[in-house]
Amino acid sequence: VGSGKPGATAGPSFQQRLLRAQQGAHSLLCVGLDPDLARFPASLRNGKDVAEAIVAFNTGVIAATSDLASVFKPNLGFYLAHGEAGISALVETRRLVPRHIPVLLDAKVGDIGITAEGYAAGYFDAWGFDAVTVNPYLGEDSLEPFLRRPDKGVIVVCKTSNPGSGDLQDLSTRMGDRDQALFLTVAERVRAWSERWPASLGLVVGATYPTELEAVRRRAPDLPILLPGVGAQAGDLEASLRAGLDATGGGLMVSASRAILYPPVSDDADWTVPVRAAAIELRDRINAARPARVGA
Amino acid sequence: VGSGKPGATAGPSFQQRLLRAQQGAHSLLCVGLDPDLARFPASLRNGKDVAEAIVAFNTGVIAATSDLASVFKPNLGFYLAHGEAGISALVETRRLVPRHIPVLLDAKVGDIGITAEGYAAGYFDAWGFDAVTVNPYLGEDSLEPFLRRPDKGVIVVCKTSNPGSGDLQDLSTRMGDRDQALFLTVAERVRAWSERWPASLGLVVGATYPTELEAVRRRAPDLPILLPGVGAQAGDLEASLRAGLDATGGGLMVSASRAILYPPVSDDADWTVPVRAAAIELRDRINAARPARVGA
Repeated sequence: VGSGKPGATAGPSFQQRLLRAQQGAHSLLCVGLDPDLARFPASLRNGKDVAEAIVAFNTGVIAATSDLASVFKPNLGFYLAHGEAGISALVETRRLVPRHIPVLLDAKVGDIGITAEGYAAGYFDAWGFDAVTVNPYLGEDSLEPFLRRPDKGVIVVCKTSNPGSGDLQDLSTRMGDRDQALFLTVAERVRAWSERWPASLGLVVGATYPTELEAVRRRAPDLPILLPGVGAQAGDLEASLRAGLDATGGGLMVSASRAILYPPVSDDADWTVPVRAAAIELRDRINAARPARVGA
Repeated sequence: VGSGKPGATAGPSFQQRLLRAQQGAHSLLCVGLDPDLARFPASLRNGKDVAEAIVAFNTGVIAATSDLASVFKPNLGFYLAHGEAGISALVETRRLVPRHIPVLLDAKVGDIGITAEGYAAGYFDAWGFDAVTVNPYLGEDSLEPFLRRPDKGVIVVCKTSNPGSGDLQDLSTRMGDRDQALFLTVAERVRAWSERWPASLGLVVGATYPTELEAVRRRAPDLPILLPGVGAQAGDLEASLRAGLDATGGGLMVSASRAILYPPVSDDADWTVPVRAAAIELRDRINAARPARVGA
């Protein structure tokens, strides 16, 4: 089924594929694929080059969690840090994910014109990602190469999880006769963009700010929200779920990376066992906080 | 000489190296190294793989302009679009630039925590760039891995050259008892950061907005400003120079990419001749608009 939006094709939108994956796995879990070689099991580091080690690690993580995750999210920074080898591993990682699970590239893109076209061509077409995170500061036209794609997702940074996110995001902006925080204005803009562009729009809101998340959800009741910061950054998971779940009890991609990828390991040979256990625990904590008998 | 700022070392700051290069070349010209294979001379495309073709093109451009440019600026998007081969070419391009000319990576980075650390380690240490462009939306702490480097430059996106840059950047923000556009608040923040962080701070302001540039310059009288949009984007060069030059008649990196890289070519074998001619013309137009008998 098409999405009924401008430019939509017969194929499913990113939001539809995400919903299908969430319902199929009964899970809102987004597993971040952020390789940190220093924390890899020793068996993956020995005798391998960087690209091989990253691919071996991600292969293990994906195999251990692909029935638990409804989206995978590699962060470009962890791959670019290794130059060519990292990019090679990123492209291969995309191919490792089963086809029914969407893959969101966390690149926080923000550039204009022909450069933005280049990023969109690279991330969507050459590398085959289903969605990207983008930065809104350069304006709607800067995002056009992403927004015009009916089959893709564009997840816009709104309120980030870091302590200093308020520097700009909390600035009071004047909208008509009222003042509101900049991140709320961003949420309203993205909601409006979602009605006039073919792509599936979404927002990034950190789990460290549940009050702000609730205000974003009020302004964007039907947009998927990527929720980082529940793991190593110690955001409040239950408060964030109460604040961020949509009317169907879904609408969130609850993202954890380090907390799942690098649990305490007792046996190097079985390093994926605690990875899987950490993913199960988080999936179940999420589901326990969702209202009973809803769709996904 | 050190910069006298917190954390400064005995080595020169990015701003000092930039000033030295500008004075040495008597030029404020920044040459953008944005490879577009479809526009390369045929001799560079035939029989070469992508990385070789890009390196051959950049080698020719750098050789033809290194006495005319005071900074080179590759834009990451043009390299990432080619995956591994592009990254390989980008790293090699960095090595091609003579040591006395700083190289600014236009990556518009914006991420947090350990990811931002990864980008800084990659761009500054592994790849050896002297400065990067960054996006301010995620706040001061997101930029800390860049800001704490006394030898590096951090050029913050402020008012971009695209038609829709005002979507967020022109929003009216309340600062105490007055309202001002968000990009001016960004300029004031960056000015304040420049006094408490070791790195050299700067701003990006598009040449398509000379009035806004003048307002930024008033708030940041001593920061270097990267001025894109004078070439293919058809900003007003002379108006921008009047608005943006600092009290010494310098303080700008006037950036052109396509207008220099891809002039009409009559003889494929001598393709660098019109490249050099375009760079000379722009350098001279810039110098003609600068006050006489000033430093650089």
